[in-house]
Amino acid sequence: METNDLQQRAINTIRFLAADAVQRANSGHPGLPMGMASVAYLLWTKHMLYDPEHPRWPNRDRFVLSAGHGSMLLYAMLHLTGYDLPLEELKRFRQLGSKTPGHPEYGLTPGVETTTGPLGQGFANGVGMTLASEHLAAIYNRDEYPLIDHFVYGIVSDGDLMEGIASEAASFAGHFKLGRLIYLYDNNHISIDGNTEITFTEDRAKRFDAYGWHTISVDDANDLQAVDQAIQAAQKDPRPSLILVRSHIGYGLPTKQDTAEAHGEPPGEEELAGAKENLGWPLEPRFLVPDDVREHFVASSQRGRKAQADWQVLFENYARAYPDLWAKFERTQTGDLPPELEGSLPVFEADAKGMATRASSGKTLNALAEKLPELIGGSADLTGSNKTDIKGEPPLTTELRSARYIHFGVREHAMGGILNGIALTGGLIPYGGTFLVFSDYMRPSVRLACLMGLRVIYVYTHDSIGLGEDGPTHQPIAQLAALRAIPKMHVLRPGDANEVAYSWLAALQYRDGPTALALTRQNVPTLDRSKYAPAEGTLKGAYVLADLGDGDPELILMATGSEVGLILQAAESLVDAGHAVRVVSFPSWELFEQQPVSYQEDVLPPRMKARIAVEAAATFGWKRWVGDAGIVIGVDRFGESAPYKEIFDDLGLTPERVASDAIALLERVSDKRA
Amino acid sequence: METNDLQQRAINTIRFLAADAVQRANSGHPGLPMGMASVAYLLWTKHMLYDPEHPRWPNRDRFVLSAGHGSMLLYAMLHLTGYDLPLEELKRFRQLGSKTPGHPEYGLTPGVETTTGPLGQGFANGVGMTLASEHLAAIYNRDEYPLIDHFVYGIVSDGDLMEGIASEAASFAGHFKLGRLIYLYDNNHISIDGNTEITFTEDRAKRFDAYGWHTISVDDANDLQAVDQAIQAAQKDPRPSLILVRSHIGYGLPTKQDTAEAHGEPPGEEELAGAKENLGWPLEPRFLVPDDVREHFVASSQRGRKAQADWQVLFENYARAYPDLWAKFERTQTGDLPPELEGSLPVFEADAKGMATRASSGKTLNALAEKLPELIGGSADLTGSNKTDIKGEPPLTTELRSARYIHFGVREHAMGGILNGIALTGGLIPYGGTFLVFSDYMRPSVRLACLMGLRVIYVYTHDSIGLGEDGPTHQPIAQLAALRAIPKMHVLRPGDANEVAYSWLAALQYRDGPTALALTRQNVPTLDRSKYAPAEGTLKGAYVLADLGDGDPELILMATGSEVGLILQAAESLVDAGHAVRVVSFPSWELFEQQPVSYQEDVLPPRMKARIAVEAAATFGWKRWVGDAGIVIGVDRFGESAPYKEIFDDLGLTPERVASDAIALLERVSDKRA
Repeated sequence: METNDLQQRAINTIRFLAADAVQRANSGHPGLPMGMASVAYLLWTKHMLYDPEHPRWPNRDRFVLSAGHGSMLLYAMLHLTGYDLPLEELKRFRQLGSKTPGHPEYGLTPGVETTTGPLGQGFANGVGMTLASEHLAAIYNRDEYPLIDHFVYGIVSDGDLMEGIASEAASFAGHFKLGRLIYLYDNNHISIDGNTEITFTEDRAKRFDAYGWHTISVDDANDLQAVDQAIQAAQKDPRPSLILVRSHIGYGLPTKQDTAEAHGEPPGEEELAGAKENLGWPLEPRFLVPDDVREHFVASSQRGRKAQADWQVLFENYARAYPDLWAKFERTQTGDLPPELEGSLPVFEADAKGMATRASSGKTLNALAEKLPELIGGSADLTGSNKTDIKGEPPLTTELRSARYIHFGVREHAMGGILNGIALTGGLIPYGGTFLVFSDYMRPSVRLACLMGLRVIYVYTHDSIGLGEDGPTHQPIAQLAALRAIPKMHVLRPGDANEVAYSWLAALQYRDGPTALALTRQNVPTLDRSKYAPAEGTLKGAYVLADLGDGDPELILMATGSEVGLILQAAESLVDAGHAVRVVSFPSWELFEQQPVSYQEDVLPPRMKARIAVEAAATFGWKRWVGDAGIVIGVDRFGESAPYKEIFDDLGLTPERVASDAIALLERVSDKRA
Repeated sequence: METNDLQQRAINTIRFLAADAVQRANSGHPGLPMGMASVAYLLWTKHMLYDPEHPRWPNRDRFVLSAGHGSMLLYAMLHLTGYDLPLEELKRFRQLGSKTPGHPEYGLTPGVETTTGPLGQGFANGVGMTLASEHLAAIYNRDEYPLIDHFVYGIVSDGDLMEGIASEAASFAGHFKLGRLIYLYDNNHISIDGNTEITFTEDRAKRFDAYGWHTISVDDANDLQAVDQAIQAAQKDPRPSLILVRSHIGYGLPTKQDTAEAHGEPPGEEELAGAKENLGWPLEPRFLVPDDVREHFVASSQRGRKAQADWQVLFENYARAYPDLWAKFERTQTGDLPPELEGSLPVFEADAKGMATRASSGKTLNALAEKLPELIGGSADLTGSNKTDIKGEPPLTTELRSARYIHFGVREHAMGGILNGIALTGGLIPYGGTFLVFSDYMRPSVRLACLMGLRVIYVYTHDSIGLGEDGPTHQPIAQLAALRAIPKMHVLRPGDANEVAYSWLAALQYRDGPTALALTRQNVPTLDRSKYAPAEGTLKGAYVLADLGDGDPELILMATGSEVGLILQAAESLVDAGHAVRVVSFPSWELFEQQPVSYQEDVLPPRMKARIAVEAAATFGWKRWVGDAGIVIGVDRFGESAPYKEIFDDLGLTPERVASDAIALLERVSDKRA
């Protein structure tokens, strides 16, 4: 396969669309697109099957630009192959409201499969996509009906391979033999600080061999034949593949090629002109797409358009041959939940001893899993602690890919990225468990789930000092606040077993972002709902459990999770002392914020200034709900290693303390009134 | 070296101190101590040099229990070798106020070199300790004066090796040929979810070979001779070493050995008795330390005690031979700053165009670096962006270890763990740079810096939507709140160049925890300090820049960082409209909280209810400072990709918006009064 003139010009078209766009924006990253244009060209014109008219076709090959800073490479490919991304958008690269932001954004630009830029994330997303596809294939494919049999391709960079999340995900992919994953490594020897020799001298191929990958090296990114042969070998190999492609960052730039300057700066007029001269490209017009090049790209995308059309026929026949499977596939692809799911939620009897909310979560998950074949998930090596397993079902293994319980290993960050990849694939609702404190380990992936608006469910157990003896290293303090601060994140910290059931429902019903469930290790009472308001209130984020005592309440006690039982005890003693108290369970700030102001003011009437919030975590942010006069009782220090009740006592999280603070508060507030 | 009876009993003493303590606490992790007791025995009695009377002796060998859940192994060793950790403390394992918490805590228990438990962290700490020691050796050692020539040993687990941070740190250590780092891998084939075969089947030895490590396998942890030979080989090899030690979790337990049950649960009375029988150990008394075993441990620690005494003599001679070096070593080991450091801070002239705070940070760092040889740091491959380099100094390389600029690579998490390791070593003040948004990648290490109270300085640039075109993937929204929520963390977001200078001073003066500096990519004006209050106010966290307009101020405008200039503009237009406005620069919540209430009320008088806070980040938590009547103007959504001024305009972060909100607020507040 010799590179002919048309191919050469097609590749240069990619290079200079990218370079022209960066130069025009006076901002961006020309180096990767110029160096890897040949590889992208080959992938998109010869190997990948996709249909620009149907960017969500379930069996499309996926392309992940893990090195998201090379966004112009992707935008150029999407434009040239016929996606709804006109040249005008390329000219508006990095401008307000364009479809060509600095880094590719899922949901904004058709054909962008995942939001990338923060390094290593795309790498893990692709692993998740491949796992999800293999899982869907195992469930849905039937003889002569290969509904799902696509590949996941990606371009990864030095930075991606340096990030820990990529290491975790690579080890995972090797273990699970995700053979349809093919990454092309932009081995350009340059990172921002200079030559990779300054800090990145490991033997990458050997490292990936050790993970169980198929590795193959290509000496020259512009040698289409060698790249092609490597891709073909990768397609055949049962292991995930890393193709190490020696490339030249900023290929063609007279002085900046092979330097860090080519990475993330506009080339400048002189360099840009020099590159065009070097590669035999007209200096003007900018954003040149020769007619025959455009025809060539459109022609090459015909393979995918035809594959999509053939697949539609296949799918119609499948509907007749396997109507139940077809119906399941159809529903789950839309993301809709089955009707009347609420009726499947377990109902927990009132019980003063109660159970840990992680335990009621496990029971709820198991009840829902029966109705929701699209639920798939696991734990980062804390299955028994997180209660994330689905009883009676074996775990997913290389041999049993239809199973849906995933042993992620002690790889929280990869778990986060893989969950995102599963959600991006479609047709599945992923969940993953670890201790709340280790949400920090996966935070960059959690943030991207928020940014992308992905329905991912995090099962974060051991959610406070209530985990006891493991001590401060394992006791979350700042994590609830840190999660709540992320836009689009829903945090739910249910107060008893029935709130847990509704929290799962809320998580499933929230389609525009992830939900973090914060769950206790320790038992909490299951409230008597004949005495208190129904647990459906959970769906509104906060609700009045009860107004206790005689007359209008003087005081609002509010709490989340394990502290709901605590404020109820405090309220009872206040009632005994003659006070009237409103008790509010407050499992989710975000759900409460979404209610009409009238509801919010019903629950927290503005005239009621005497308010106390209790949460066994940093008080950070709670002032908003208790107001100037109110009090927040929490934990603004690191915890302690001891049996958990002793820690609660030692840190003043007791009903007695809440009651005495309440009485002092009522006195202060009434003094002010007087 | 055959295992003799005394050795065998010494090893069993370790095993059963651990098992008895876990059983008594009814909580903890017996598996690792029982499986790796032989290895710890050999390390502490034959190889490591330490002096229990001088646990901070600078040239001691370090021991890092990266698998911190095996804490009882460490507590047993510390007790047996004579550290100030009486048997009573072992009996109080995991009890309130004991020195034997669930996971080892630096600063609490003498001899504990770092706080571990969150996996992978200790691994990276050890890398940092080795780098720091090699650096100190290169600076201070002279012919015949090997002031620093110790090893760093550690025990790492499956979980450690699965974590991404360990991968990053291992690649780093291999690159920098940190030959004095020796890790013993507790290769017990078991993780919490079961046999490691379920998810962790990579070839670990090959992977570490690929990183440039020396690897060697030992078939049986109890074969002291084989372990000894491996350690000796590791000591001689110029590369960091990973010794893969096949061990048996819960060694001796009749039914739980080699199962996940041995990992993190008390053995139970029956299993414990069975193990004692299996290994020929008396069932009672619990916590048995036979006299000859105790003598044996104390005797073996004599090597270290003598080494410490010899070192003191060496150090006294060194004082005479190299008085300047000695004085530098002495001062930096105490952690004290040189006197009158404030006088070394650069002073920036008033300038309406100003400069980015990352730029003034770079200048301040360079000014301080001249006076502070103990400053050592770098960037996670963003040197030019973070402005973290020290001009005129070459970077640290394998050949030039006396240099102090570190190319961490795109390894933010390892950077965090390595910075902690450097701080733990003593004699150095580490700093590290990345974009603020990527503080998420290193958050677990940042949290541990807080928990340990380590003086580490984070240089977080590109601190808001003000970074512009790179877009929402790179624009921090939740990060400031997430950092502020961590106990002991100081966050400083200085408003101009002179505040930057004082922010560095504040960071250096804070010895009980880390400081995060949040710095702009974009220019901000350098304020005219003849017109506004002096920048020293930064040290108090918040201060009145000026009361503008006539009469008592009606309104407080407060802001951090790049928004200080913005509220000054708003204030000017309000003054033009006849209002009197107080302008408060608020670089650090934490520093302000530490001021006397009288100062706080001077700056933010309680009677002044009309308050507006402006920060280009999540508004999360600000309500506390503006009160019920106040307004917070921020960014509670993800950002945009565009030139930064357009983003500020689009998201309503403009002087005009602040001024109009202020006028509306003043009307509301005066309505209420009326």
